[in-house]
Amino acid sequence: MRALGREVSNWGRWGSDDERGTTNLITPERVAAAAGLIRTGEVFHLGIPLDGDGPQPGGLRINPIRLMSENGQEQVLPGGFKWADDYVFMPLQAGSQYDSLAHVHYDDQLYNGFAGDGVSVKGADKCGIHTQAGGIAGRGVLLDIAKARGVDWLEAGTAIGPAELDEVAAAQGVTVGAGDILLIRTGWRKKFLSDGDAAGFMAGEPGLSLNCATWLRERDVAVVGSDNWAVEVMPGENPGAAFELHMVLIRDMGLTLAEMLDFEDLSEACAADGRYDFFYAGPPLQFTRGIGSPVNPLAIR
Amino acid sequence: MRALGREVSNWGRWGSDDERGTTNLITPERVAAAAGLIRTGEVFHLGIPLDGDGPQPGGLRINPIRLMSENGQEQVLPGGFKWADDYVFMPLQAGSQYDSLAHVHYDDQLYNGFAGDGVSVKGADKCGIHTQAGGIAGRGVLLDIAKARGVDWLEAGTAIGPAELDEVAAAQGVTVGAGDILLIRTGWRKKFLSDGDAAGFMAGEPGLSLNCATWLRERDVAVVGSDNWAVEVMPGENPGAAFELHMVLIRDMGLTLAEMLDFEDLSEACAADGRYDFFYAGPPLQFTRGIGSPVNPLAIR
Amino acid sequence: MRALGREVSNWGRWGSDDERGTTNLITPERVAAAAGLIRTGEVFHLGIPLDGDGPQPGGLRINPIRLMSENGQEQVLPGGFKWADDYVFMPLQAGSQYDSLAHVHYDDQLYNGFAGDGVSVKGADKCGIHTQAGGIAGRGVLLDIAKARGVDWLEAGTAIGPAELDEVAAAQGVTVGAGDILLIRTGWRKKFLSDGDAAGFMAGEPGLSLNCATWLRERDVAVVGSDNWAVEVMPGENPGAAFELHMVLIRDMGLTLAEMLDFEDLSEACAADGRYDFFYAGPPLQFTRGIGSPVNPLAIR
Amino acid sequence: MRALGREVSNWGRWGSDDERGTTNLITPERVAAAAGLIRTGEVFHLGIPLDGDGPQPGGLRINPIRLMSENGQEQVLPGGFKWADDYVFMPLQAGSQYDSLAHVHYDDQLYNGFAGDGVSVKGADKCGIHTQAGGIAGRGVLLDIAKARGVDWLEAGTAIGPAELDEVAAAQGVTVGAGDILLIRTGWRKKFLSDGDAAGFMAGEPGLSLNCATWLRERDVAVVGSDNWAVEVMPGENPGAAFELHMVLIRDMGLTLAEMLDFEDLSEACAADGRYDFFYAGPPLQFTRGIGSPVNPLAIR
Repeated sequence: MRALGREVSNWGRWGSDDERGTTNLITPERVAAAAGLIRTGEVFHLGIPLDGDGPQPGGLRINPIRLMSENGQEQVLPGGFKWADDYVFMPLQAGSQYDSLAHVHYDDQLYNGFAGDGVSVKGADKCGIHTQAGGIAGRGVLLDIAKARGVDWLEAGTAIGPAELDEVAAAQGVTVGAGDILLIRTGWRKKFLSDGDAAGFMAGEPGLSLNCATWLRERDVAVVGSDNWAVEVMPGENPGAAFELHMVLIRDMGLTLAEMLDFEDLSEACAADGRYDFFYAGPPLQFTRGIGSPVNPLAIR
Repeated sequence: MRALGREVSNWGRWGSDDERGTTNLITPERVAAAAGLIRTGEVFHLGIPLDGDGPQPGGLRINPIRLMSENGQEQVLPGGFKWADDYVFMPLQAGSQYDSLAHVHYDDQLYNGFAGDGVSVKGADKCGIHTQAGGIAGRGVLLDIAKARGVDWLEAGTAIGPAELDEVAAAQGVTVGAGDILLIRTGWRKKFLSDGDAAGFMAGEPGLSLNCATWLRERDVAVVGSDNWAVEVMPGENPGAAFELHMVLIRDMGLTLAEMLDFEDLSEACAADGRYDFFYAGPPLQFTRGIGSPVNPLAIR
Repeated sequence: MRALGREVSNWGRWGSDDERGTTNLITPERVAAAAGLIRTGEVFHLGIPLDGDGPQPGGLRINPIRLMSENGQEQVLPGGFKWADDYVFMPLQAGSQYDSLAHVHYDDQLYNGFAGDGVSVKGADKCGIHTQAGGIAGRGVLLDIAKARGVDWLEAGTAIGPAELDEVAAAQGVTVGAGDILLIRTGWRKKFLSDGDAAGFMAGEPGLSLNCATWLRERDVAVVGSDNWAVEVMPGENPGAAFELHMVLIRDMGLTLAEMLDFEDLSEACAADGRYDFFYAGPPLQFTRGIGSPVNPLAIR
Repeated sequence: MRALGREVSNWGRWGSDDERGTTNLITPERVAAAAGLIRTGEVFHLGIPLDGDGPQPGGLRINPIRLMSENGQEQVLPGGFKWADDYVFMPLQAGSQYDSLAHVHYDDQLYNGFAGDGVSVKGADKCGIHTQAGGIAGRGVLLDIAKARGVDWLEAGTAIGPAELDEVAAAQGVTVGAGDILLIRTGWRKKFLSDGDAAGFMAGEPGLSLNCATWLRERDVAVVGSDNWAVEVMPGENPGAAFELHMVLIRDMGLTLAEMLDFEDLSEACAADGRYDFFYAGPPLQFTRGIGSPVNPLAIR
């Protein structure tokens, strides 16, 4: 894994002080070109509902708890005015979300060589999610692996390798290129929608194999999003290791991951007219020094 | 105010069960047309930072409190893997945010006649912010009132009326039309960036006068966003009343408001080339039954 | 149940504006007399740990989530001073806790006839837990049902009736009297300590039968505490009903309940010397308008 | 300060693995003896209300935010049963509270030499507040400095030295001895009750001078509580230093501090009959690895 990490590394590519990694690949020119993918004006939102029925079984993360602070019941205001307000307590990665580049590291270094202990009780002094606040809009491409395999979802532990990515892209008639936001549909969201089993959702998942890192690096993909919770296959391919693709993609390549997205409606629309690229707009919230951010990305066709 | 409310009402316009109001005006055709406004591919994000230095002085709302649950310090995992995670506790309207149509009401009825007591301790049974999850992308127009007046910011209590909206639009060479997301720059964000005075930010504000409701209704504006915290002028024009424009826009017109946005960079870019319309993409998070949602909208030129 | 409620009612007994109910029975004279029960000075605390391994399976309530806001890592302060601080997010009834008299009601009325809709999004306008802040110290009596039956714990659904309360008291050589804080040990805490099964802990429980209400009323017990989560047997005795003893004790009698306590060490000490009464000191936190409060009561022998 | 710290140090006194410090001084014999101080049975609670009107001005700590999760409004349950429930988000030291011995340290070591970096994002691996869960009940002594000076409150920055402690004790006819819970009334709570000025409450305070450490060590006081927020005088006596008494008492002596208590009613009762000692029962909540805990101690006379 460390050798692979060195091979695909983007450290220094955008300067020694760069905190954004591959989202640098989303240049204004590419954004402008991607606008041409908007044709019918149909908008699909890729975020899952944020409520108590989400995929978190408890433990490390819980589902969002939203509570009302005002509902008008006790208010006596001029003009009969009533207002309502609410608070939320939630893990920033409870549902559809981005990982900041400070989310994982190894050997005491984050992406671009920043010190691992800069991730303190205060958050990330480098590579916080706020550094991505302005950047995540551009060309989106969906690779619908589940549909290509003709299944509702791939089973947990099923690895998706580079060859399959190429085959599905070819079958869909789409290419994956520099600065793209690549979305991988495994059907894992569909499974959760079918059975509502949060513990099962988190117990494992189908996902990318470790050697997809090279494939992603060769194509200069800017962001990878998935409908599972960790992009990569779980359990991983190497017994005794954990989250190896996370480490290589985030820490070595500086690639932003988006997880727990919902591609169900988008999948049908793409299949209907055979067009698998679109304009993607998914800004994270600007949590200063944050490790992650909830997001509700839009795919606009 | 009640007479004005009846005059501009959209109740029933999109059916008796409609919960979205004027965002229905953002049709696919209009989205597709708005894509043509993306020319250079420059992306501006309009959300303010979410941290302890935000504009909430405490009391009804606080600034977001983000706390770390993991930073790797105690972890002993295979492969030297370290991970970090964080939680947030925040009012959903602490910073840049949308009001759902359940945010305010009067005379026991919400937008479209839904019962006011449907806003319970559980949230909004009708018109929750999740109903807007898919819709808020389209043509954005900035009316830069502060720049037109040649000031850094308008003072608190300064009302902006329909005539001024027309004048500024004309001077900027832009028209405001059906389905637009209209952004009003008062400079109030610039004031906060200058003095960091949260109590002062909330004590009052420049903003729209009550009779702007008719102007917005005539043009069929879909969303109004502002860099202040309530869109409307505070203190309001009628002593003894409170938030009258909120009540008319949200409850009678069903118009979605966006507040506490930051137009500083966008303002400069628009001024530089004289182009005040752009593609706007600002999806709320999908908080089921939520009263509001934080948002970090993108303006893409 | 309603007939029983009327029979044991304490409405009006301490005045029409009383919000405290049976804790009024803990008079200074009784507190002073109870002090005589302190002999060896041994202190037992009856609260369970507040952390992520508690008995809440998620859903309506979660276990407490405590997060650090400071640990010193980034601090640079005079004199090398380092400080740490933490926040908690928790249901007030996540672990060992008191129910306020506003916790349950029926037929639109709380204890003493207060209006049910006074329990609003803001909390309890009457009978909030803060009204008990000064009162809960006095004579404690443990009835160790599990030990008397010779089992580690009674099974879920096992009802404990008045006759058994009398028998166990007699066997233990203790009487239950006016103003007492009565603690019922079912062994349900021991079960959780054995298996750590939160879902099982909450799925049902052994506990008091409905007709214990009369027994408690006749003796003028001030507080009932238990090592289960609802004092009463679950599932309840009447199919189609729910929490009937809660309703009669809290709403009709105005009796304060304490739940999810740990009597394991206290049980052993009482058995060792055959003395089952002691001084009890268990002040709730003073959450204004709160529905419940965590507590860590002391039993001092 | 470091010299003073060495002089009063209790490191090793109760073994090299002791995490409790001076609360070890509260032996069963002393608890039993203290029971004799209960005469009239009057109970005073020393905790302040936990709500939005507390003494936290925001910033590092906020006042507790309690929100309802259920109030019955939407419930349809058998038997007309309605229930209410609430959550809280709060700093564990927002109001009346104990400092754990992990709250402060210097020179990389906590009390008893435990490693400073054992206070991680997960909390305290040594000396967490849960280690005090069973111990804080015994003889309480109030030294009413404000009353002795004949003022409502001492001004911020006013230091209370050992001589004054002796004088007030003598005038009150009380002695301070081993294992005592010593309560110092400065009137600072009364000031807050008078003016409600949270920022003023936190901007400074009257309190103990640094050389009180020796006085406390000589008498083997077990706990010191105060009606201010840091026990010690603020600003401190040495320019350029901060919280020196905290460091010596907590880190070197292993002495537990209680802060933001309310002695107003107790003060009057003690003055009325000239008796300044009583039974004190103030168990912290058992937050595993917690840095602090809210508490509502009882003083029973």
